[in-house]
Amino acid sequence: MKRGQFITFEGTEGVGKSTQLANAAEVLRTEGIDVVVTREPGGTPMAEAIRELLLAPRDEPVHELTELLLMFAARAQHLHTRILPALEAGQWVLCDRFTDATFAYQGGGRGVSKERIGQLETLVQGDVRPDHVILLDAPVETGMARARHRGDLDRFEQEAVSFFQRIRDTYLERAGNAPDRYHLVDATAPLAEVSEQVAGLVRSLVAASR
Amino acid sequence: MKRGQFITFEGTEGVGKSTQLANAAEVLRTEGIDVVVTREPGGTPMAEAIRELLLAPRDEPVHELTELLLMFAARAQHLHTRILPALEAGQWVLCDRFTDATFAYQGGGRGVSKERIGQLETLVQGDVRPDHVILLDAPVETGMARARHRGDLDRFEQEAVSFFQRIRDTYLERAGNAPDRYHLVDATAPLAEVSEQVAGLVRSLVAASR
Repeated sequence: MKRGQFITFEGTEGVGKSTQLANAAEVLRTEGIDVVVTREPGGTPMAEAIRELLLAPRDEPVHELTELLLMFAARAQHLHTRILPALEAGQWVLCDRFTDATFAYQGGGRGVSKERIGQLETLVQGDVRPDHVILLDAPVETGMARARHRGDLDRFEQEAVSFFQRIRDTYLERAGNAPDRYHLVDATAPLAEVSEQVAGLVRSLVAASR
Repeated sequence: MKRGQFITFEGTEGVGKSTQLANAAEVLRTEGIDVVVTREPGGTPMAEAIRELLLAPRDEPVHELTELLLMFAARAQHLHTRILPALEAGQWVLCDRFTDATFAYQGGGRGVSKERIGQLETLVQGDVRPDHVILLDAPVETGMARARHRGDLDRFEQEAVSFFQRIRDTYLERAGNAPDRYHLVDATAPLAEVSEQVAGLVRSLVAASR
């Protein structure tokens, strides 16, 4: 059984990750590939319970290390009990956010050092990394306007524009450092164009894997 | 303002930690010391919510890294937002379990390596360690019989005797390695004797701090 590909979708709020994840899953199914669609934090009942703890607005200020460790607790559960077994069974896994989001949100956004995040990445993942990262990029204001239209904001969405600017910068920096694994998509283009770019990319990954 | 003392109470299930913690708090109050009584995992609303996640019996097997990271997530919140501010304000903090329990339960019990636990200890605590650890020791069977009488068992209490034997062994090993900080109390002695030993110990810590 050939190992499946692990593809993650990243970007700031409102850039269209969910739409493009569904689009990519449809392309893969058309190609006859067995697909798992999942998200972080979450992806198992235990990890989804951790997600609720993380996202719920609360009066108690959440320490940055608490947030970081909860993210990796959810990730450990998701990776070891769902993602890795699926990949080993030959399924392709499409995941809405993964460790790049931790570097972007907790690192770039909150100011936790890259070294600390990297230490936890190694502890939880060993040398497992996404095979491909699809980064949907748009100016922060564009995405936030879309996110606000969706209704009540969670604990992260309530942050200031500068917080999301640092997140976008971190994503772009990481993509620039590893252009083979990161695929930058301009999310300000018309939806049909974005969808065609993502579909074409996914088809090329399928072709390369055969 | 003189920094308070950080004293933790450790031991396997049913050895009488809660009783002796209340006893120690009473002794300290009689000595005119401002005391905070707390517990791990827990001690703040956020950390107590993590405790519920950890202790609830569930169908989904919880990965050992998930459990370990949740323990340290709760600890980061408790230590940085409650314990350290209290100590700095001159209060003494009595805590039912702390990182020794992680080495004992997740290390000795579940087999997570000491190195991994030590790495997280440093990440979350820096060089903060309890000033004194009161280890209530009893054969596993004695304590488990008491715990079972309390009613429904949580996810940890449902484990086998051998699990608790490894926990006791780890506690004793750690106490043996740092006899100045660890105070071993024979919890099989009559309650009045155990209480008098703990009270005497606490009075001597107060005397030493003045």
